[in-house]
Amino acid sequence: MTALHGFLPPLTPRGTSALVPNLPWYYSGTLLTVEYLTDPANVRAILPDDIELAPDRPGAVAIIWADWQSCSEGGLELLDPIRSQYLEAFVVVRCSYQGEVYSRCVAIWVTKDFAMGRGWFQGYPKKLGSVHVTRIFSRGKASPRLEAGARLGASLAAYDHRLASALVTLREPSEGNGFVNGHRMLHNRFMPSISQGQGLSMDQLIAMGGVDADLGQAWRGDAELSLADSPWDELHSILPVDEILGGYYREVGVTFAGGDLIADRSRTV
Amino acid sequence: MTALHGFLPPLTPRGTSALVPNLPWYYSGTLLTVEYLTDPANVRAILPDDIELAPDRPGAVAIIWADWQSCSEGGLELLDPIRSQYLEAFVVVRCSYQGEVYSRCVAIWVTKDFAMGRGWFQGYPKKLGSVHVTRIFSRGKASPRLEAGARLGASLAAYDHRLASALVTLREPSEGNGFVNGHRMLHNRFMPSISQGQGLSMDQLIAMGGVDADLGQAWRGDAELSLADSPWDELHSILPVDEILGGYYREVGVTFAGGDLIADRSRTV
Amino acid sequence: MTALHGFLPPLTPRGTSALVPNLPWYYSGTLLTVEYLTDPANVRAILPDDIELAPDRPGAVAIIWADWQSCSEGGLELLDPIRSQYLEAFVVVRCSYQGEVYSRCVAIWVTKDFAMGRGWFQGYPKKLGSVHVTRIFSRGKASPRLEAGARLGASLAAYDHRLASALVTLREPSEGNGFVNGHRMLHNRFMPSISQGQGLSMDQLIAMGGVDADLGQAWRGDAELSLADSPWDELHSILPVDEILGGYYREVGVTFAGGDLIADRSRTV
Amino acid sequence: MTALHGFLPPLTPRGTSALVPNLPWYYSGTLLTVEYLTDPANVRAILPDDIELAPDRPGAVAIIWADWQSCSEGGLELLDPIRSQYLEAFVVVRCSYQGEVYSRCVAIWVTKDFAMGRGWFQGYPKKLGSVHVTRIFSRGKASPRLEAGARLGASLAAYDHRLASALVTLREPSEGNGFVNGHRMLHNRFMPSISQGQGLSMDQLIAMGGVDADLGQAWRGDAELSLADSPWDELHSILPVDEILGGYYREVGVTFAGGDLIADRSRTV
Repeated sequence: MTALHGFLPPLTPRGTSALVPNLPWYYSGTLLTVEYLTDPANVRAILPDDIELAPDRPGAVAIIWADWQSCSEGGLELLDPIRSQYLEAFVVVRCSYQGEVYSRCVAIWVTKDFAMGRGWFQGYPKKLGSVHVTRIFSRGKASPRLEAGARLGASLAAYDHRLASALVTLREPSEGNGFVNGHRMLHNRFMPSISQGQGLSMDQLIAMGGVDADLGQAWRGDAELSLADSPWDELHSILPVDEILGGYYREVGVTFAGGDLIADRSRTV
Repeated sequence: MTALHGFLPPLTPRGTSALVPNLPWYYSGTLLTVEYLTDPANVRAILPDDIELAPDRPGAVAIIWADWQSCSEGGLELLDPIRSQYLEAFVVVRCSYQGEVYSRCVAIWVTKDFAMGRGWFQGYPKKLGSVHVTRIFSRGKASPRLEAGARLGASLAAYDHRLASALVTLREPSEGNGFVNGHRMLHNRFMPSISQGQGLSMDQLIAMGGVDADLGQAWRGDAELSLADSPWDELHSILPVDEILGGYYREVGVTFAGGDLIADRSRTV
Repeated sequence: MTALHGFLPPLTPRGTSALVPNLPWYYSGTLLTVEYLTDPANVRAILPDDIELAPDRPGAVAIIWADWQSCSEGGLELLDPIRSQYLEAFVVVRCSYQGEVYSRCVAIWVTKDFAMGRGWFQGYPKKLGSVHVTRIFSRGKASPRLEAGARLGASLAAYDHRLASALVTLREPSEGNGFVNGHRMLHNRFMPSISQGQGLSMDQLIAMGGVDADLGQAWRGDAELSLADSPWDELHSILPVDEILGGYYREVGVTFAGGDLIADRSRTV
Repeated sequence: MTALHGFLPPLTPRGTSALVPNLPWYYSGTLLTVEYLTDPANVRAILPDDIELAPDRPGAVAIIWADWQSCSEGGLELLDPIRSQYLEAFVVVRCSYQGEVYSRCVAIWVTKDFAMGRGWFQGYPKKLGSVHVTRIFSRGKASPRLEAGARLGASLAAYDHRLASALVTLREPSEGNGFVNGHRMLHNRFMPSISQGQGLSMDQLIAMGGVDADLGQAWRGDAELSLADSPWDELHSILPVDEILGGYYREVGVTFAGGDLIADRSRTV
């Protein structure tokens, strides 16, 4: 009898149809980051009860635009690039659990289904969105160069509502590209019972992060950021901007090879 | 301390951001169905080991194009229709488990993220696709009427590869709109462990189906169907067409209010 | 030698590739209309110098959401419905030229390239947009019915900026579905010289309208309308809402078979 | 009285809404090119009667994938990058007119409406398509590097039909990135009369090309190319591949500032 294969559904005899292929997953791309402060009470309100605020700068938030090319082992996706390229915009806060500081993604929008599927596995609360960020080319007059004064725009919309617009003006090379997204991620993975009102079948707390980081020169600069809500998305209302900390740009490569189960409250329902 | 709300991620204090709202979910739309026979060995190969072929016509397959408007309690989605409307194309076979015959969706493509999220909950192996089906208007020369001779086209593509094209010519009113998608659905819900190679954290077999069906007059007719594969999707190769059984069209309304857990092999990994 | 064929570019020996096929063009669909008053000075400002305000209610504006299926002779498009279906949202005012009252489209967004091409031919100033309008199905709980109290939403966005949102609540059957879009259209067709700063090569004033109207029962009701601008589109700023006149819904069919040249100032540049 | 402004429709008092802003237009991006030979009779058949085959290698064809960022004077588009970025795939042949050799675009698909509008002005026969090409990043494992052995994929689809797929394997730096798209473009600009059957109102032959070319290092290599037709697009059938000549990659910048009228047969119809 034929066995079924595939990392995520659908499963088939050959496994070709799976929404997401086996680990590891490889990423090459750019990150445009805006970091800001909100009232720490806003961060507290978006964290589960059993996860605490980070002890240092607990109101810090990062919103990051990533322009990715990604593939699995063998790189077949790179040859049909529609299956390889996507963008995402995501919102990260820091938190503390059992004495350790983590980063945590509290909102994320991506442009492709395979990225949504990876998010379900990794505990990223992914939705689809329309995500754009200025690119840096080396030729012609329709592009900033990677240099002081470069201006990079970014936008995020979902269901035809503009949720975020940003403008980063690069000023100088920097050591890193921000501190908010700098820890391992602490995420919840959950699935309600198929029976209405029976609670959660899967209810896990997991930790994860990339490996084999291949980092380009980071740049930092000034940033402007405008956030909004829609009937389907809260962004301004949950994490309003009190003070902009700065903006960053960096080309990066990274590999994702799995994470660790931290706590499991899954039930047979 | 604020509690977090939402049926599926992301969770927020008010729950507005959730990809999918609470049950029940309401659907109004049309179904264009093509039923055909494939070698029963093909159906056997796409079923998990512990699920058996249906005893009667085990090689029957339905591919269905649904053109939906949907909402949750209160109907807010209907007022911002981009959040309410979507299309899906899905492939259904029948199977048997512990003596009961079920329908089972083995492939499905949808056009919106909320529909993907509902599928993850219901065990539909959803991916994004581009789905189109001819509509029946009552005025003008750019539409068939709901009458004998009406010709309805349909298409499915994913990652810019055309996977299916269909043409149904209606012949006469009929009792129903096919038999393959006529049972409760038997689906697997699973999630791999976040730790590479550790197997499945969630591993459930569930049954579900719609309630409160509000059925329009069904029509049946002749059908043509062309299936293809792509590097990312198997359709022709897993369930090739041996013989077309017929085509159907029907306007329908239905409500989804949950299902039942049949078996659970979830593990703490 | 092979001749080249096609109504609009590209031309090929068989003409299959043409963006738009030969006239006539057939349309079946629905129209959701909101009519309102703006200061007549706003309408005056959006008209060319040689076109005057309509004598009666010169500040009347209609914004219309159309949900179309369309095809050319033979109806091949209907069998590959992605090539047949599109939506558009457009803004119409009235005007007067040489003593005759016309309607005139001053802004329009469509969802497909063939609709853009038809607009270039007809003098509609078409751009791409994301257009959605609530549909009326006959079954299930996720749809209004065509009856008093039905609520229909509509939205328009371009470049991820929401430009218009509307809500129409139907109250009663009515004679017609508004008066602003009720005359022949008076449009300009122009093309700048390929040489910079040389003015217009084509510069025509044309009149056109549909024929063979096949009209469903119109309904009228109350309406809400919210307009906005973006960096790329003016809508609120050019035709702001002073007073809502009403909302309408109607299923319609129509044929377009060409129009008439009214004036021609084209030059050889 | 307010004047109306805008390069292409719609015109408004401030001109902000125009589909395309004033010249000049700036471009920064990458070009992936595959050059091949078809039977010269195929090229002859796609040229108007009064344009002749190029004397040298008349059957040469280039298909080019361009990944662009573009803007007008002031660069406002770069700060809302959804308005600046687009891709296009286009097919170029060479031809001869009054003793001069030109390049000529015979088919082109773009991803944004402003690019369609520019094409109408320039005589490019633009349609919308879905266009993808592998990008070259400097970091991580999900990207080729600009070096021998790099493999770059590309795809083109329209109306959910895959029309072209290409794979270029870079071998070495080269002087240029092909010869087929190396001349000024000779294009027709035409518009049928609004009155059915009256011929063309605008009927121009124009020449144009970019200026201020800012060229990166070109690379050449091997190429594979697969072309197809759909009910709406001819590509394989009009210019089938007899022999692949090679593939190229180059980063480029260019400015478009207008062209020259070569012949004008416009009529007042």
